[in-house]
Amino acid sequence: MLTLLLRLQFATKITDRPNMREIAQPQPVLARLPPRRPKAARTLGIVGGGQLAKMLAQSALQFGCDIVVLERKDHSPAASLATETVIGDWDNPDSLLALGSLVDVVTLENEFVDADSLAALEQFGHQLWPAAATIRTVQDKLSQKRALAAAGLPVPRFAPVSAPTAIASAAENLGWPLVLKKRRNGYDGKGNFTVRSAADIDRAWAYLGGDANGLYVEEFCSFDRELAMMLTRGQDGAIVAYPLVETIQRDHICHVVKAPAVVTPEIAARAAEISRKAVETVACVGTMGVELFLTKDGNILVNELAPRVHNSGHYTIEACVCSQFENHVRAVMGWPLGSPAMRAPAAAMVNLLGAAKGSGTPHGLSQALAIPGAHPHIYGKSGTSPGRKMGHVTALGKNIDDAIATAQRAADCIQFGGDT
Amino acid sequence: MLTLLLRLQFATKITDRPNMREIAQPQPVLARLPPRRPKAARTLGIVGGGQLAKMLAQSALQFGCDIVVLERKDHSPAASLATETVIGDWDNPDSLLALGSLVDVVTLENEFVDADSLAALEQFGHQLWPAAATIRTVQDKLSQKRALAAAGLPVPRFAPVSAPTAIASAAENLGWPLVLKKRRNGYDGKGNFTVRSAADIDRAWAYLGGDANGLYVEEFCSFDRELAMMLTRGQDGAIVAYPLVETIQRDHICHVVKAPAVVTPEIAARAAEISRKAVETVACVGTMGVELFLTKDGNILVNELAPRVHNSGHYTIEACVCSQFENHVRAVMGWPLGSPAMRAPAAAMVNLLGAAKGSGTPHGLSQALAIPGAHPHIYGKSGTSPGRKMGHVTALGKNIDDAIATAQRAADCIQFGGDT
Repeated sequence: MLTLLLRLQFATKITDRPNMREIAQPQPVLARLPPRRPKAARTLGIVGGGQLAKMLAQSALQFGCDIVVLERKDHSPAASLATETVIGDWDNPDSLLALGSLVDVVTLENEFVDADSLAALEQFGHQLWPAAATIRTVQDKLSQKRALAAAGLPVPRFAPVSAPTAIASAAENLGWPLVLKKRRNGYDGKGNFTVRSAADIDRAWAYLGGDANGLYVEEFCSFDRELAMMLTRGQDGAIVAYPLVETIQRDHICHVVKAPAVVTPEIAARAAEISRKAVETVACVGTMGVELFLTKDGNILVNELAPRVHNSGHYTIEACVCSQFENHVRAVMGWPLGSPAMRAPAAAMVNLLGAAKGSGTPHGLSQALAIPGAHPHIYGKSGTSPGRKMGHVTALGKNIDDAIATAQRAADCIQFGGDT
Repeated sequence: MLTLLLRLQFATKITDRPNMREIAQPQPVLARLPPRRPKAARTLGIVGGGQLAKMLAQSALQFGCDIVVLERKDHSPAASLATETVIGDWDNPDSLLALGSLVDVVTLENEFVDADSLAALEQFGHQLWPAAATIRTVQDKLSQKRALAAAGLPVPRFAPVSAPTAIASAAENLGWPLVLKKRRNGYDGKGNFTVRSAADIDRAWAYLGGDANGLYVEEFCSFDRELAMMLTRGQDGAIVAYPLVETIQRDHICHVVKAPAVVTPEIAARAAEISRKAVETVACVGTMGVELFLTKDGNILVNELAPRVHNSGHYTIEACVCSQFENHVRAVMGWPLGSPAMRAPAAAMVNLLGAAKGSGTPHGLSQALAIPGAHPHIYGKSGTSPGRKMGHVTALGKNIDDAIATAQRAADCIQFGGDT
């Protein structure tokens, strides 16, 4: 009866959705239903079961928490650590509420979740961190940029574009090249197109599906380096900031992270202030990643926000007293935050990406494990494809060059793909 | 058909066992059977699902391994991390073989497993580390002492006793008091009785169930301090040795561990040599704990061996480059061993024990998490009782006093029990 009541309430609260029964496909399914045991510890629900959820779950398990994962498919890196997996569609409030009913707190490993559906969780009294409002602001890159600009934070100049003609108009102010971006669901460079001149506009518009997807443009930022900072903010507003790092992309995907970034103290301080203010602007609770551009003339611009744990913070597992994952769990559970201090002078992380289509087997792991100081992490995905994030290697060091050398040597041993 | 064949073979190989069908109670049950997915990574099977298995599983998961646990009950700390749980009796070869059929390697979190049943795993071609022969020697404390003595290692003098009268005879050589011990299944002091004079013999014999259980006696060792060392030995014989630690027991249960032990370099070197030789004597593959007595006159005696990860090595998670758990996984998977070097000058671990019967809720965890540098671990057991190991707190420090102070402050915040 409660379920029916929920469905009727949806019909009134979310007016653009027809009768829930009709659209609630696929129905959420409790993939495993063990007998309910007396709950000794807190249960954390995670929307999404990828490697970010897996590493969150590993931290939560240290504190005796149980994990429930909401995923679209049965097998995922985090599912192995979950007591139960809800198979459903995270854009569907039914699925989110099924998750909410099983846990004390819901969190996310990815921000591309329907914000109205997340709001339903809150409306029905479930704890959700970060809040639906934060997700709503951040997941749309245009609204994200608007919020940051309104808060006085430095961002690349930007403009909405509702038709290809608007791109040429925007270029009159922002110059060429322009970066045409999808407002939603873009990551690892997939939602961007650099438009070098008016001749490229139609191709760019078609490539990003401008007729179906909301797009906007940013001025092209000729950066010197890309930086990032992870921060965790508690429910009480307390913030801890991790070291500023430098990130090196390859084919638009994160390749190497160097911690701490080698910048002047003045730049580090400015980056920290900007990042803190960005976190407060979107009122994020939990761990958030702030991606920054450092321009050739020493300006810092906010590039992207990620309201979740982030690739540029994986090094914190070995490098910091309290990792980005552990602090995220502390924040969403309402526990005090831990120290982000580094345990060694330097750390480096190298991503492990699929080289070709194949199984998820980490060929050469044994050789990587023979390298002193190398810490390989293998996410346990059941298959790979070119560029797919399959794991990472972290190394600590007396200095950044030592750390990178160790991490890279180990990463070079491991290959995914080409084996089926 | 394969199962039937296995059962007939058991009847011939293990001649003291009647038809397997009759004694195979409870039948092993695959508690959850998800569709078998293509195996990308190695699968580790763990006999037992307690906190030691949980922490082993956490290390294995970092390398993308899957876990299958064999347990007697459905809910256990490690079950949350397992893709499947086999519910069965680990003394029953059927249960062990059910586990073996699902995994690449079998290991154990407790040595009190029928050695003949473990041998069946090896006979049927499964990888088992440590080997059945190691378990067989170590699980019987008398055979353990005999093996160590035969190898020339210093142990308290000992003698078998097959009747109460033998105790008095033994005292003529070994003096009073004597420690009467169960040969098998004793841990946390439960299998010991200190016999102060002949007047105590009958009471001691009855207390330990001497008519049913094999017993033996050891001379009483008036030790100055108790020390311990964790070591990991690979399948190729390579050994890494962790720092020597001091352990402080309370009511026969481990209470505090201090790393490194504050002893002379000469004592540390001797302890390391004795421990290495002990590991080689029993040919243990994987992580092993060697418990030592340091006598008032500076002698080192081997007290106990544990052919598994051990309470005195939990500090290694934060304190060492590669924890006892990670190195155990590396060893049993046939991977190179990692560094046991400490990351800080000192570390301390304080156990969290149940104060009274109750739920498994860690009351006061939030306050403990507010203490900088405290690393609480909560095992996630669903209930508690007095003295039950429910978690531990580790802290690193510039020196051992700092580390203990931090760990103890945090531990004092947390209480288990008295809440139902």
